Amino acid sequence: MKSFTRSKQRKAARQSARHSRSVTKHLAKKAGQPPGTLMYIGDASDEEVRISLLDYDPDGLKELTDARVEDILPYRQSPTVTWVNVDGLHKTDVVKSIGEYFDIHHLVLEDVVNTTQRPKLEIYDRNLFITLRLIRFDEEADEVRSSQTSLIVGENFLLSFNQHEERMFDPIRERLREGLGRLRGGGADYLAYALVDLVVDNYFVIIERLSEKIELVEEELITDPQRETLRTIHGLKTDMIALRKSVWPMREVINRMLRSETPFIKDSTRPYLRDVYDHTIHASEIIETSRDIVSGMIDIYLSSVSNRLNEVMKVLTIIATLFMPLTFLCGWYGMNFKNMPELNSPWGYPAVIGVAVLTVVGMLTFFRRHGWL
Amino acid sequence: MKSFTRSKQRKAARQSARHSRSVTKHLAKKAGQPPGTLMYIGDASDEEVRISLLDYDPDGLKELTDARVEDILPYRQSPTVTWVNVDGLHKTDVVKSIGEYFDIHHLVLEDVVNTTQRPKLEIYDRNLFITLRLIRFDEEADEVRSSQTSLIVGENFLLSFNQHEERMFDPIRERLREGLGRLRGGGADYLAYALVDLVVDNYFVIIERLSEKIELVEEELITDPQRETLRTIHGLKTDMIALRKSVWPMREVINRMLRSETPFIKDSTRPYLRDVYDHTIHASEIIETSRDIVSGMIDIYLSSVSNRLNEVMKVLTIIATLFMPLTFLCGWYGMNFKNMPELNSPWGYPAVIGVAVLTVVGMLTFFRRHGWL
Amino acid sequence: MKSFTRSKQRKAARQSARHSRSVTKHLAKKAGQPPGTLMYIGDASDEEVRISLLDYDPDGLKELTDARVEDILPYRQSPTVTWVNVDGLHKTDVVKSIGEYFDIHHLVLEDVVNTTQRPKLEIYDRNLFITLRLIRFDEEADEVRSSQTSLIVGENFLLSFNQHEERMFDPIRERLREGLGRLRGGGADYLAYALVDLVVDNYFVIIERLSEKIELVEEELITDPQRETLRTIHGLKTDMIALRKSVWPMREVINRMLRSETPFIKDSTRPYLRDVYDHTIHASEIIETSRDIVSGMIDIYLSSVSNRLNEVMKVLTIIATLFMPLTFLCGWYGMNFKNMPELNSPWGYPAVIGVAVLTVVGMLTFFRRHGWL
Amino acid sequence: MKSFTRSKQRKAARQSARHSRSVTKHLAKKAGQPPGTLMYIGDASDEEVRISLLDYDPDGLKELTDARVEDILPYRQSPTVTWVNVDGLHKTDVVKSIGEYFDIHHLVLEDVVNTTQRPKLEIYDRNLFITLRLIRFDEEADEVRSSQTSLIVGENFLLSFNQHEERMFDPIRERLREGLGRLRGGGADYLAYALVDLVVDNYFVIIERLSEKIELVEEELITDPQRETLRTIHGLKTDMIALRKSVWPMREVINRMLRSETPFIKDSTRPYLRDVYDHTIHASEIIETSRDIVSGMIDIYLSSVSNRLNEVMKVLTIIATLFMPLTFLCGWYGMNFKNMPELNSPWGYPAVIGVAVLTVVGMLTFFRRHGWL
Amino acid sequence: MKSFTRSKQRKAARQSARHSRSVTKHLAKKAGQPPGTLMYIGDASDEEVRISLLDYDPDGLKELTDARVEDILPYRQSPTVTWVNVDGLHKTDVVKSIGEYFDIHHLVLEDVVNTTQRPKLEIYDRNLFITLRLIRFDEEADEVRSSQTSLIVGENFLLSFNQHEERMFDPIRERLREGLGRLRGGGADYLAYALVDLVVDNYFVIIERLSEKIELVEEELITDPQRETLRTIHGLKTDMIALRKSVWPMREVINRMLRSETPFIKDSTRPYLRDVYDHTIHASEIIETSRDIVSGMIDIYLSSVSNRLNEVMKVLTIIATLFMPLTFLCGWYGMNFKNMPELNSPWGYPAVIGVAVLTVVGMLTFFRRHGWL
Repeated sequence: MKSFTRSKQRKAARQSARHSRSVTKHLAKKAGQPPGTLMYIGDASDEEVRISLLDYDPDGLKELTDARVEDILPYRQSPTVTWVNVDGLHKTDVVKSIGEYFDIHHLVLEDVVNTTQRPKLEIYDRNLFITLRLIRFDEEADEVRSSQTSLIVGENFLLSFNQHEERMFDPIRERLREGLGRLRGGGADYLAYALVDLVVDNYFVIIERLSEKIELVEEELITDPQRETLRTIHGLKTDMIALRKSVWPMREVINRMLRSETPFIKDSTRPYLRDVYDHTIHASEIIETSRDIVSGMIDIYLSSVSNRLNEVMKVLTIIATLFMPLTFLCGWYGMNFKNMPELNSPWGYPAVIGVAVLTVVGMLTFFRRHGWL
Repeated sequence: MKSFTRSKQRKAARQSARHSRSVTKHLAKKAGQPPGTLMYIGDASDEEVRISLLDYDPDGLKELTDARVEDILPYRQSPTVTWVNVDGLHKTDVVKSIGEYFDIHHLVLEDVVNTTQRPKLEIYDRNLFITLRLIRFDEEADEVRSSQTSLIVGENFLLSFNQHEERMFDPIRERLREGLGRLRGGGADYLAYALVDLVVDNYFVIIERLSEKIELVEEELITDPQRETLRTIHGLKTDMIALRKSVWPMREVINRMLRSETPFIKDSTRPYLRDVYDHTIHASEIIETSRDIVSGMIDIYLSSVSNRLNEVMKVLTIIATLFMPLTFLCGWYGMNFKNMPELNSPWGYPAVIGVAVLTVVGMLTFFRRHGWL
Repeated sequence: MKSFTRSKQRKAARQSARHSRSVTKHLAKKAGQPPGTLMYIGDASDEEVRISLLDYDPDGLKELTDARVEDILPYRQSPTVTWVNVDGLHKTDVVKSIGEYFDIHHLVLEDVVNTTQRPKLEIYDRNLFITLRLIRFDEEADEVRSSQTSLIVGENFLLSFNQHEERMFDPIRERLREGLGRLRGGGADYLAYALVDLVVDNYFVIIERLSEKIELVEEELITDPQRETLRTIHGLKTDMIALRKSVWPMREVINRMLRSETPFIKDSTRPYLRDVYDHTIHASEIIETSRDIVSGMIDIYLSSVSNRLNEVMKVLTIIATLFMPLTFLCGWYGMNFKNMPELNSPWGYPAVIGVAVLTVVGMLTFFRRHGWL
Repeated sequence: MKSFTRSKQRKAARQSARHSRSVTKHLAKKAGQPPGTLMYIGDASDEEVRISLLDYDPDGLKELTDARVEDILPYRQSPTVTWVNVDGLHKTDVVKSIGEYFDIHHLVLEDVVNTTQRPKLEIYDRNLFITLRLIRFDEEADEVRSSQTSLIVGENFLLSFNQHEERMFDPIRERLREGLGRLRGGGADYLAYALVDLVVDNYFVIIERLSEKIELVEEELITDPQRETLRTIHGLKTDMIALRKSVWPMREVINRMLRSETPFIKDSTRPYLRDVYDHTIHASEIIETSRDIVSGMIDIYLSSVSNRLNEVMKVLTIIATLFMPLTFLCGWYGMNFKNMPELNSPWGYPAVIGVAVLTVVGMLTFFRRHGWL
Repeated sequence: MKSFTRSKQRKAARQSARHSRSVTKHLAKKAGQPPGTLMYIGDASDEEVRISLLDYDPDGLKELTDARVEDILPYRQSPTVTWVNVDGLHKTDVVKSIGEYFDIHHLVLEDVVNTTQRPKLEIYDRNLFITLRLIRFDEEADEVRSSQTSLIVGENFLLSFNQHEERMFDPIRERLREGLGRLRGGGADYLAYALVDLVVDNYFVIIERLSEKIELVEEELITDPQRETLRTIHGLKTDMIALRKSVWPMREVINRMLRSETPFIKDSTRPYLRDVYDHTIHASEIIETSRDIVSGMIDIYLSSVSNRLNEVMKVLTIIATLFMPLTFLCGWYGMNFKNMPELNSPWGYPAVIGVAVLTVVGMLTFFRRHGWL
């Protein structure tokens, strides 16, 4: 159990600090740059940038993987729904070219390559721009990590830009290929809904991981609280804060999608969005509740430290209270006065033994009465 | 008194953590599933699924128990009010069939079988969908448990789907059978009101249980606070949080029922809903107040721990302060110097006795003046 | 001073818990009852139910005390203002009869006999229903108690239902009899205003009592904080919470009276209501401020406990630090080695005396420098 | 430094409690009084009631000091702006007469003589009623005091009623007499603005005083925290609460003046009011920030108490750990067994000396390694 | 590591207090002054006041540095965009002259020279007035400092007034000179946007500095918490509060710019403003999160102090518990009774050695079992 908290947590605490620092460092770098410059803001990456394309209607589906930017152009014109997915944003010229093909506002493109955004929805005349944060649990660092995915929903097309290569959307691709459910029949807005739904459902996976950790720590708190336990609780709290930062604004994003009067969201999709909206509400409530529980754990921890101090002090007090009078007694008859009649009396020693025994019994009775034994 | 907190609480703490974990586990499982799949999310159950039906108007009442799905169909058409109650949701095909008979949106059916919902109201064109959480106090685990009941209110019919077999609605059935009160004369909306009213009234039963526990713990806190007491307080706090999570959204649900302009709520029912609304407000206020009181109990607990430490330290200090000077005195005349004139003086020993007595008296006076005795 | 907190508080803490429990117990009992049943919810009472009547216009006044229900009927028809006051609600048939005479909605009557309501205002077509909570300070239990009074304001009549016999309204009766002020000339709404004003003004009496208690406890906290002090603070906090629960909703009640477009509140009465409204705002602000001050007192208490521990520890440390080296010194020359030259030297004993004195002086200097003496 | 906190604070704490108690006592006295009675509520005062009058237009100014009520009457009719200032409200007949001359609603007059009001604005058909709280720092009691000033703004006149003789408005009088700035040319509303502006600017004087005190206490907290320091912090917190209570509602008062559509505020005055509004916002933000800082100081204080305890305990532990083994060593060779060969060995004593030195060196090394020395 | 917190922090704490005091001192000075007086409120400064001018359109740019007030006049009339920048506000006649040239309301000019404003936006008929706070990190005092910049945006001109000489705007000047980006083509509103964008981007630089400090302190907290650590945390908290005070109102300022229907903001500029708005939201969220993390650090600190006390007490208890029984044993056989048979027995001494060893072993076993070793 101890191994759970100790080594991992210390490592995690450092990484967490380093991470949050790097986020602001990126942004700080941007200060003084003219607006309109397409500048990648995020962790350096040497992954390949990959473009894939899915073009479908209820009757058929075409797929391109590892496409070049030029390959996409013809699909733009077609009446079928076109989903262009870009994994990796550090090569901004790719984003720029695609943005020009699909006629995207350059401020949107700037936001796409700035991976430190909070979830938001922006409604433009020609499309809808949604920023999402994907959360995963980094097993090695034992902490919550987030990356950014941007969706641009237009007439018959959806562009998704992922900060890293994203396998999370694979189930959607599979369902599209197999033509199951409503996905092929729905438009680009229904596809956007399906992706958002996936992202939100994934929050519950992370929440479950944290709940498991909470359970472990609660167990540890009851059986054997350690110095490291508080640090783990602090780590949980920090994770909760990070999670909350991603989930909370999603409520507003989805609510605004739900209520916006843009043509890019069809009425038939709205009930589904209402459903996702309920899920985000639910997720944020669980997070709030967990935060309350974690806060309560700190109280328990602090009181357990105090209780332990009390116990230590009781042992000390019992020992001192037992032996100090006895030591005094011995010291008394260890004095070298010539005329101490007791020393010569034959009853002196037995009497002292008696007094000692009585003292011990008396003390023990006192302790028992005060509930210290 | 001690037996109250100790064994039960430890057990409960574990179960509670396990439970909240299982909730998110269920939801996590759903991630990646296409929307529109009817998937039961909740505790595994091997109870029988039971369907019962009550069809009534002011003049008469028909009742079916342990009905099959097919038996329900004819009642759908009748102008009388039809109440179909389903206990157990783990067989999703039953829910699906009934949903089809009564023309329910498939998203509603999904929510019906997802038993981890928060209370909510959704207004559809053809019906009203209400999710409620029933709360009961699990005596064995010594904690608050909740289950889900969904109501679908339509023209002349009400469907109720309970996660578990629900005896809570029996009084309503009895009143329907006996034709007492307004129940037989009211429509499906009045029946819905009666069920919601029952659920809300039941919250007060649980609140009373928790108030009783608070009283017991407050008593314990005053007479004899134990290590386990804080854990019990933590448990109470967690129970409060759980209760609040169920009661709080009910305010909004009932308020929206009250204000909605749907034809499924008749104007004559609105005053009754306003009444239930007041009750939920009242319930949430009692919960908030109790939370405040429980928070204050933590302060008292922590200060009682500190006070106890103070007492232990006082005993130690009194003992040490009494005996250390005396022991020094003895030690002094226990030295073996040849030329210590006091040792040979006949007044040496009596003088030392006098000094010792004076020291003790002086110390005791000092302690009494400082209020330590 | 000590007698102030100790005995009273312990008693009060128990009664308080018992009381709040009984409130929810009453409500819990109601669960499962059909709505529309007139069931008294409140403390059992064996007081007589007393009905009194005042019928007045600017020109004259008639008065009935200990009236029977039937006596009231004729006054209903008259164009003069009729004030029917009922003390004691446990005989629900009295309430029911009066309700029928005055054509009151049965939900209102239910609320009248349910004495656990929070303050509220309900606007009906034929009258206005106001629930108030009267607060008094129970000297014996040393805590705040509340009872319920309901007002029903109609065309030319006002019904007031008090949970207990209520002497609080006597000044109003007196002023009516004497025809002083605007009371006789105003309508039923002005009478209602006068009663509400009385109730709100009375809150300040209670607030003053609590302020006095805060002052006493603050004094005690500065001069001589005891274990019981924190409990008293906790009691004050609980009283504040109880008071707040009654005062807070009054703001909304009076504000809604003020703004409602019902014919039962005349425009000439509104400025007076605005005045009461300001008083409730003022009262709730004083309560909030007092809550803040009481919270700060807990910090001071906890720090005084810590400071006291520090003092005890200082005494212990000073004693131990003074005598341990001395005792060691004595022990050293209490050893029985044959060849300890110091023992035989004539300067041995004086040297030891010198060392002991130097040690003591050194220690005392150290303590003085560290500010421990 | 110590003298700063000790004596003053104790005194202040008592006075503060006494003061807030007296406020509610006044209000409590009013309970049961018929509305419409003009009753002075406030500290008893034996100051003279003084009436002064300034009547001006851009071309000239007339001034009356120590006027009688009758002297005012002629100025009421004139088209010039008339400012009547009353210092001292305990003679309610003065207020009543002036109120009748200027046709003021009797509820307004009641509020004028009730000096426990919170800042508010009331808009009547014939005038505007503003209640302000003036704050001053009582050097002697070392605490914040507030008094009430009411302004009644009408067509061409402004009445100001001060609880005490108020020298704060002297600069305005001076500017009027000298005809500097816009004051003479503006109407009664501009005069009202100038007075309110003065009151708000004066808040910053008080805030500065408290900031100075915070600085002193922060210094004390760093160099030498005392028992009294926490009490001073508590006093600061209480002062902040008091200040906030006066400043906070001013925001609403001025905002409503700014937005009200009354003819008594001219459009040309509104930009000036917006300016004062900004100042009140600024003042409340500084207060909030200071509250946060003061709260943080409590944490530092508590931790410094804990740190000091740690230090005391370290001294005790070092002393005990050094001398207990040594004393044991001495005790061992102080035993009187006949056959203890060490006692007779010539190396016995030197060996013991060696062991003692080694023990001391070992202990000191241990302490140094643990950073205790 | 220690050097990081100790010396710097103490110094910073004093400066911070001194600074915030000086702010209110300035404002307090103003109390009693007639509105309309142009009075510089801020730190005394002996910098030169510098005026510079940039006049540009897409086709060309003229620049004046160290201009006199009279030099500006001709550019006012031209259809090109004119940017007048003033560094240093302590010579109010410069501000006054420019204000007269450009027809600025005198209340605006008052706000320009009052450098203690919070960020705000005021919309006038002839221009837009924006107050910003620039934040920099003062390396020497190790704390966050802020200064004021006011922007006045009119038809074809922008005036910027900086409290101190401001090199922060140099990149904008450079871009204007080089004619890069949209800057030359945009109007005065786009220039205002660019300046605001620069100010907001600069917040992230400061946030990064504080995040770095948080990381350092978190590291210190884990490895070696010192007395000074809490003070550093307190300093961080105070910095956060200061930062928040500047950033928070910016949200409202930019939001109102975005939504205002003034002709001074063109529609083409609004998307850019929305972008800055998102950045301010993001900045305030990072600040809030950091505040939460810093609050959690205080809990960890306090618990580490408690844990350290526990450790110290364990050492003391172990030592006392080991040696007190042994010392008693020695004392016992150090008694001088004539008839103590053990003393003469040849097995006496070995037996005592055995008992001593057994005692030590027993104690050590006890400690190991309780996890103290």
